[in-house]
Amino acid sequence: MSSELPDKKRISESTIHRLSMYFRTLSLLQKEGYETVSSKELAKREKLTPAQVRKDLSFFGSFGTRGLGYDVVELKAKIGEILGIDRHWKVAVIGIGNIGSALVSYKEFSRQGFHIEKLFDNDQRKIGSNHKGIVVSDIKNLEKEIAEDGIEMVIITVPATVAQYMVDDVVRAGVKAILNFAPINLKVPSHVYLRNENMSMELEYLSFAIVNNHTPKNMK
Amino acid sequence: MSSELPDKKRISESTIHRLSMYFRTLSLLQKEGYETVSSKELAKREKLTPAQVRKDLSFFGSFGTRGLGYDVVELKAKIGEILGIDRHWKVAVIGIGNIGSALVSYKEFSRQGFHIEKLFDNDQRKIGSNHKGIVVSDIKNLEKEIAEDGIEMVIITVPATVAQYMVDDVVRAGVKAILNFAPINLKVPSHVYLRNENMSMELEYLSFAIVNNHTPKNMK
Repeated sequence: MSSELPDKKRISESTIHRLSMYFRTLSLLQKEGYETVSSKELAKREKLTPAQVRKDLSFFGSFGTRGLGYDVVELKAKIGEILGIDRHWKVAVIGIGNIGSALVSYKEFSRQGFHIEKLFDNDQRKIGSNHKGIVVSDIKNLEKEIAEDGIEMVIITVPATVAQYMVDDVVRAGVKAILNFAPINLKVPSHVYLRNENMSMELEYLSFAIVNNHTPKNMK
Repeated sequence: MSSELPDKKRISESTIHRLSMYFRTLSLLQKEGYETVSSKELAKREKLTPAQVRKDLSFFGSFGTRGLGYDVVELKAKIGEILGIDRHWKVAVIGIGNIGSALVSYKEFSRQGFHIEKLFDNDQRKIGSNHKGIVVSDIKNLEKEIAEDGIEMVIITVPATVAQYMVDDVVRAGVKAILNFAPINLKVPSHVYLRNENMSMELEYLSFAIVNNHTPKNMK
């Protein structure tokens, strides 16, 4: 991939965030029947400057044609490829509480290529129950079933006290990436990508900003 | 606050994230009966280096006593104050779908001082229904009720197409901060703090990392 991303180290989280937004806007433009889009129009829809849009897109090579703008389908495909959402990802959710259940019903996941195919819980009342067509498996079989089904990403929504055990199991089973909702710093080997999410911390960034009258650096 | 935060511009999102984690660990240490904690012990629990812990905490003045470590209660209180979670925040959720409902049941919010006190939806089947003791209000009365109840933060989980209208209403009503789950860039005046959250984008950071074998810069 190095020819496509000549300077990967410069790509920050906020750039990826904007690429995700462009992808969504391009999908909308495609639906609306647009064949091309200018950096000006894209900027207007994203509430960004045209210079920012051109900078972000130039990053990944030359897409645009002066005077015509960007080809909507081509640009969308290119961004999708860069983000890795031009394919089918097999995802499992571990912990079917309030957040876990909400995620199973979250339509945008499959729209972006993330397909929840396995659910796990340790609660006997939940094991065997059906959520959107998926039967909840017993957490006891976590490692075995994740490996057998070739699950690549897992979403962890179990309590903090047990999260590391789940992670150790899925890492052994060959998972490549973990989105963690448990409020704990998890240990993963360097070949596994980990991202932490915590709803309450999201509000803490905001309370920090209000109280200190200051937005934290790099806030998305 | 400037005396407490001598160099606020240096505080990044990842520092705030670690402060949030320290706060949680200190709560746990307090429950476990610890009166003091060393930077080494704190680092071990957070899976960080002691140097990182000392750097983060020195940032906010001198807390520790050489040989004794940090006073658990005092350090927790100080971090709580910095994060603005030593008080009662009045929060509203706008849009009571899957994610919205899950957030209403999310216990960690109130534990950190974020109290959901109002819910809004435009669906006649939802208006008047009771979620965890809160009756869902009609979105028509959004501005009026937010202002009357002195709500300071709102969580937006409505579709992207209507999110900006909701934001304009709550900004007029005096809200100070917005956590946005709608996949759209919202416009807010400079005195209102905005944070965007998107579950699917969280997975996109991970798919990017897997496909490009590279973690984005500043990834939390």
